[in-house]
Amino acid sequence: MKIVVTGATGFIANAIVERLLSEGHQVYVVVRPQTNVSKLLAQIELFTDTGNTTLLNDFFQDIKPDGVLHLASLVLVNHTLEEIEPLIISNILFSTRLLEASVNAKVKWFINTGTFWQNYNNEEYNPVNLYAATKQAFEDIAKYYYETNKINFVTIKLNDTFGSNDTRSKIFNLWGRAIANQENLGMSPGEQVIDISYIDNITDAYMMLLKLLRDDDNSTYAGEVYAINANERMTLKELSKVYEEVTHTTVDITWGGREYRDREVMVPWNKGKPVPGWKQNISLHDAISTVMNKGK
Amino acid sequence: MKIVVTGATGFIANAIVERLLSEGHQVYVVVRPQTNVSKLLAQIELFTDTGNTTLLNDFFQDIKPDGVLHLASLVLVNHTLEEIEPLIISNILFSTRLLEASVNAKVKWFINTGTFWQNYNNEEYNPVNLYAATKQAFEDIAKYYYETNKINFVTIKLNDTFGSNDTRSKIFNLWGRAIANQENLGMSPGEQVIDISYIDNITDAYMMLLKLLRDDDNSTYAGEVYAINANERMTLKELSKVYEEVTHTTVDITWGGREYRDREVMVPWNKGKPVPGWKQNISLHDAISTVMNKGK
Repeated sequence: MKIVVTGATGFIANAIVERLLSEGHQVYVVVRPQTNVSKLLAQIELFTDTGNTTLLNDFFQDIKPDGVLHLASLVLVNHTLEEIEPLIISNILFSTRLLEASVNAKVKWFINTGTFWQNYNNEEYNPVNLYAATKQAFEDIAKYYYETNKINFVTIKLNDTFGSNDTRSKIFNLWGRAIANQENLGMSPGEQVIDISYIDNITDAYMMLLKLLRDDDNSTYAGEVYAINANERMTLKELSKVYEEVTHTTVDITWGGREYRDREVMVPWNKGKPVPGWKQNISLHDAISTVMNKGK
Repeated sequence: MKIVVTGATGFIANAIVERLLSEGHQVYVVVRPQTNVSKLLAQIELFTDTGNTTLLNDFFQDIKPDGVLHLASLVLVNHTLEEIEPLIISNILFSTRLLEASVNAKVKWFINTGTFWQNYNNEEYNPVNLYAATKQAFEDIAKYYYETNKINFVTIKLNDTFGSNDTRSKIFNLWGRAIANQENLGMSPGEQVIDISYIDNITDAYMMLLKLLRDDDNSTYAGEVYAINANERMTLKELSKVYEEVTHTTVDITWGGREYRDREVMVPWNKGKPVPGWKQNISLHDAISTVMNKGK
């Protein structure tokens, strides 16, 4: 299939692109002018989006993709006055332009990426932050497109993620660094439940959904929202114990050394549906073990 | 009260501003650099928004408004590729910047304006067009603000509207012109139900809501959505008969001379709640009569 991917220089989309290429798909990525594309594989075709919708539309008309995997996003836990515009431009305007170009080119399916932060307090919709609100806003805009066009528009919602080659400042990297530097780490009281998924399990879900949508000629799934939950959900404190056990290390943490953040998610969303047919293949224990060994 | 109004050069906000001034409120309007402000009354204070959120925020900090009446909108029945960006900039980005400035200045209430087009087929949410989808998207974003701040954010949804000084190309103007020019008018088959409200009834609803929100210290109404429905709902064909009866004229219409538009609303939304305490004071019959006599 000809597949357009956005966010391909990011951790998750990058892993998905590798999987797509290994399965023989033709991958096109849409990037921004300022994106550093030096790490992208040679067999990928690039389109640089300058914000001109006609040019983006022409690109889709030229290649006539089968589907779109939309993972590009500006992620901000908190926003400043100046960040409102880039948040809306990246997460709503760009997404809408991409979907418009998709329906005009009669793209069959479009996988969008959402976040558990759209479901604060396990509610149907309650955004943790403005970033999560922009994600919900785009889902509502998408409804216009799949109500008026035949396109299988589906959202996969992600929560915490990890894997090798993950350079983001996430929990395992934080602990790894604290151990390496023999530092004490002041953390929150640690009673929040963590739902963290390993990258290979996530790419499994995207690949499974992509096949489901490819084989569906009636846009049966349009508007569906799926969640990727980990089998193992535990508090941050408990997670640190698993981490220490698997890596045979001890992390020097002062629990309660800092406060919970404003609107800290104590219980991540657990009311989402899994991608049909998907199950978590790799356990948290094995995944941590793999990532830590690779890292050395 | 100090009240910020947007869209003040438009038909509805203009009428509301006149009412606010007549009741002694201090009115500030936010306009764009390209807005023709020559018709705005002298006692109104202007802020020209160039898109800089810090300046908009400073303006709110300076005046510390009691409330905001947000009626500015880019209304498009259909959109072109090039209109996606202005739609999102006007209806989502500007609205978000306005609401951000409002919560930062501890504004007590914010009345937003939506459209029945968000409720195609009388559904909870199904946008007739991209314009309606941007309205829904802003409501999603607003939820972030009223969940995290004490602000009485309420939406009034409007459908068709009319009144004196209405220069928009709407149904009564269309019929008036056809009579004046002795033209035959090709129209759709005319079986769609029309729900059209007179401007004075609409301003009543805004004034009533504004008082309700002013007197509520607990943001009780945050997230509420109200609808302004006309008491008289009838098909377009029936409406033409009422019009002819009131104006003692005959409109030369060829029903079915053109097709229904794509996603024509056959039954406008009728599941909305009215503004608490509001009722339609002026009948459709009397309103048409008033407008037509004024127009002569």
